[in-house]
Amino acid sequence: MSIKVTILGCHSATPRVNSHTTSQFLEINNHHFLVDCGEGTQVQLRKYKVRFSKIEHIFISHLHGDHFFGLIGFISTLGLLNREKALHIYGPKGIKEIITLQLKLSKSWTNFPLHFHELKEKTSQVIFEDEKVKVSTIPLKHRVYTNGFLFQEKEGQRKLDMFLISQHPEIDICDYQNLKNGKDFVKENGEIILNKELTKDPNAPLSYAFCSDTMYNPDIVPLIKNVDLLYHESTFLKDKEHLCETTMHSTAEQAAKIALQANAKQLILGHYSSRYDDLNLFLKEAKTIFENTHLAHAGRVFELQNKKPVLTLNS
Amino acid sequence: MSIKVTILGCHSATPRVNSHTTSQFLEINNHHFLVDCGEGTQVQLRKYKVRFSKIEHIFISHLHGDHFFGLIGFISTLGLLNREKALHIYGPKGIKEIITLQLKLSKSWTNFPLHFHELKEKTSQVIFEDEKVKVSTIPLKHRVYTNGFLFQEKEGQRKLDMFLISQHPEIDICDYQNLKNGKDFVKENGEIILNKELTKDPNAPLSYAFCSDTMYNPDIVPLIKNVDLLYHESTFLKDKEHLCETTMHSTAEQAAKIALQANAKQLILGHYSSRYDDLNLFLKEAKTIFENTHLAHAGRVFELQNKKPVLTLNS
Repeated sequence: MSIKVTILGCHSATPRVNSHTTSQFLEINNHHFLVDCGEGTQVQLRKYKVRFSKIEHIFISHLHGDHFFGLIGFISTLGLLNREKALHIYGPKGIKEIITLQLKLSKSWTNFPLHFHELKEKTSQVIFEDEKVKVSTIPLKHRVYTNGFLFQEKEGQRKLDMFLISQHPEIDICDYQNLKNGKDFVKENGEIILNKELTKDPNAPLSYAFCSDTMYNPDIVPLIKNVDLLYHESTFLKDKEHLCETTMHSTAEQAAKIALQANAKQLILGHYSSRYDDLNLFLKEAKTIFENTHLAHAGRVFELQNKKPVLTLNS
Repeated sequence: MSIKVTILGCHSATPRVNSHTTSQFLEINNHHFLVDCGEGTQVQLRKYKVRFSKIEHIFISHLHGDHFFGLIGFISTLGLLNREKALHIYGPKGIKEIITLQLKLSKSWTNFPLHFHELKEKTSQVIFEDEKVKVSTIPLKHRVYTNGFLFQEKEGQRKLDMFLISQHPEIDICDYQNLKNGKDFVKENGEIILNKELTKDPNAPLSYAFCSDTMYNPDIVPLIKNVDLLYHESTFLKDKEHLCETTMHSTAEQAAKIALQANAKQLILGHYSSRYDDLNLFLKEAKTIFENTHLAHAGRVFELQNKKPVLTLNS
């Protein structure tokens, strides 16, 4: 069980030579997700050596350009690479029309199945679920319809305690899967050995919440309670807090307040306005409220592994 | 009178870390045009220090992504920069729907006027003309409706020959504009001094033809006859000529043949397939047919100045 977030871009508004708009590559419990897809995301994926073919699900928070203008280019490139595997896209209503119109007019419809899951609900919904991972929306408050996303690992199988099992020669290898599934062992004489006497608890599932873009909104706190890793936008510092109301963005301090209220383990900041040269001011401001804060920057990898529930960073 | 072409990107298909899809910034007789606009063009414009506000007209050859996926991002950024000046976009029918749909869904309609000039004619048309420059389409043969563009300077005013004028004290400074306009001078006694005895010919107007993407098509030769500077796509080398028919692209040799037949002064190659690492092979192949051939690469500037009708390159 592990979560690994590679930041592909984390600046607001427009891409520049050395700053890229929002996109993240998320690896969680053997799933590979792309989260938001600003212009140039496909180049950032190449730069950080992410194999395009791995990505099967793309989550788009909202239809502002700095979060999705790279999507059509990425899809087109997958077509040129002769992808066959289906691609699932989750995003606000309208995203299907934008993408399909461009594919139609360029006469370059993909050879792989493209499934759109359009979102329009204003309360949290489960939008993806399998035996390993569940993804739910986090309704955000922004100038257009916007969702954050909560990615949660499912609880894994129980772990066999081989020492305890070896004390019972009647337990065969064929019984192991039942034990992993939590079943008790029933001897031939009808005696029961409780599952918990043969197995250990599975690793605790990890969770990641992606919240971009939004104004300060404590309503999301119950949805992200106790999350292991929280990305929360921080477009401004406190000196520009007055801009948050009209632009519907947050300050670093507000992001930290959400992390504190949600009892998040770690906070990542991003979506910085280009007016700030010194990003360490964001870190400093947030840390006054929430100590375990980190700055996103392109190429930075945040990794949580269950066996070692401490955040590791590549840079 | 001058032509300056800054290559922003010149590779085919998809943008990569060190190769960018088609876009050129053209300065001609004090006009500033953007020609094609692949994904990431706005970043390339910043990289090569082109002021966004200068651009008033954008010409899009066709609706394949590597020629226009950067357009919506560039327009959105102009909006964020509070542009007020109108922007004119010339491109295939459908381009207006693509751009306006995205502006509508992101609720970010521009505050500046956006004028679309949609093209659908299959013969050459004049699509822009003022006292300085004329722009015509060059119908190309590609998998979708595609135009190249011919940019022609208008002939300038006649140039005053101050030595000859000084021999006639009756000619006043107020008469100069008439002389520049080609009028003869009539003395008070009715005697006529011919214009050509007082002025010199204006600089010869320069022309630039942009041809991308197209299969080998000698039909365009009459349209670009004697052009000063020709950009012609060369996606493949001769070894892959068999791919030209299905993909409807050209080889370097074919581009050179067009330049030769058109009696172009200079040829620029571009739109290289990513399968080739050594671009000098394109140059070598084309030069066997047409000596004055040059390779496009991002950041390369091709400049023709009338006083010095020799191509200058920055790198």
